[in-house]
Amino acid sequence: MTFTPPDHTHTINPPVVILVDPQMPENIGACARAMLNCGLYELRLVRPRDDWPNEKADANSAGALEAMPPVKVFETLEDAASDIQTLYATTARLRDLAKPVYTPAGAASDAIKRGYNGEQIGILFGAERSGLTTKDVSRADAIINIPLNKDFSSLNLAQAVLLVAYEWRTLFEKTPPLSLPTGKSQKASLSIRESLYERLIDELSVRGFFRTPEMRPSVIKNITTMLNRADLTEQEVQTLHGILTTLTAPATNKS
Amino acid sequence: MTFTPPDHTHTINPPVVILVDPQMPENIGACARAMLNCGLYELRLVRPRDDWPNEKADANSAGALEAMPPVKVFETLEDAASDIQTLYATTARLRDLAKPVYTPAGAASDAIKRGYNGEQIGILFGAERSGLTTKDVSRADAIINIPLNKDFSSLNLAQAVLLVAYEWRTLFEKTPPLSLPTGKSQKASLSIRESLYERLIDELSVRGFFRTPEMRPSVIKNITTMLNRADLTEQEVQTLHGILTTLTAPATNKS
Repeated sequence: MTFTPPDHTHTINPPVVILVDPQMPENIGACARAMLNCGLYELRLVRPRDDWPNEKADANSAGALEAMPPVKVFETLEDAASDIQTLYATTARLRDLAKPVYTPAGAASDAIKRGYNGEQIGILFGAERSGLTTKDVSRADAIINIPLNKDFSSLNLAQAVLLVAYEWRTLFEKTPPLSLPTGKSQKASLSIRESLYERLIDELSVRGFFRTPEMRPSVIKNITTMLNRADLTEQEVQTLHGILTTLTAPATNKS
Repeated sequence: MTFTPPDHTHTINPPVVILVDPQMPENIGACARAMLNCGLYELRLVRPRDDWPNEKADANSAGALEAMPPVKVFETLEDAASDIQTLYATTARLRDLAKPVYTPAGAASDAIKRGYNGEQIGILFGAERSGLTTKDVSRADAIINIPLNKDFSSLNLAQAVLLVAYEWRTLFEKTPPLSLPTGKSQKASLSIRESLYERLIDELSVRGFFRTPEMRPSVIKNITTMLNRADLTEQEVQTLHGILTTLTAPATNKS
């Protein structure tokens, strides 16, 4: 096996995913795909219903099972989680257990802190139909509960894995929630924008756009507010200068 | 149609999901399921490849298509989005467009603010194989880019819909990232915990647990630190008192 873990594993091990009593091999494949989408690559199975390895799982993994280290199969949860230091149990039904309950994002935040302390994290998911037993949940250190529409909360197994793995990834990668790519052009500085606005106001002024001197300041304020909200780049200011030049020239009937 | 929108729609309309050129009806059904999982219920299709309504979509929606208002089908994106005030385009490939790029969580935060201002939000998803065209993306106000493992970023359509819808839901519902259900019992107050610790230390003391007076303070500090970290409830403190009573009584050989 020549699997090379992604770069970030030099600093922190991503969580191990443990599926307990998974039924459909297609779902196991889809779980592997969702995991690798998010940079998780260690999948363990406890008592899968069907044979393993499994062609249906391979087909539904979109290549993930081939790209990941071999999936390990265990007889018991204790065996599958023997090296796990902090174990989260994903469950839709909250049991009467005095155990921390995290959202996927909350669990990711906790898991990343623990990961930086060198802990190996594991995340449990139960069977498609019945979920985890209360005994399995009680073995975990904390619960992950995915907050969904209470009137329609049945989530596919791979989608549950995706949500938990995705929250881990985005928190770990610290992707900024908003970025504004401006290509080769920078956002226009205040002076670059102001010179465009002044030119526009002059051109409007000489053409009688401002009907009365009283309205002039508030109209100018509205125009500059609108244009500033557009977050113009230097390139876009140039384009607007060109538009202004064209519009103020006499029409030449060129098409 | 007697569809009753969930309670929260009295304050804010959830985003409309628009699938452009969707190919597999199974995926449309899975998208509907993911949407309704997250409380979104308005799905529009632009030029679906197969007939609509579609039995394969129904079967794969786990009842969502039946529970939602009827899906509307359009010939063009302009028709499908005609009433949308702020439109986000979900895309894996970043184009050379000076347009805000959000993560799903960033977009959710922006969309919720706009929703409270009464805006109708729409979210575009492209065809399974090819995604949105650059022309379609350029029509949107902002881009949603799902940050995934760059070496394995092919995400199923319904999973992309799920991630975007889920981030909207969790932000909107303000689910606390961590909660600690304690059942009928409250977390034990400091004095309740301290009286347990004092009793434990006394019992240890009379049995010679502290070998030297010098080590006593640091051992006590370690024990109380460990027990405080357990976030004990009043019920659990009672249980520990019972354990202490039992362990300090003479063995009676009862099983």
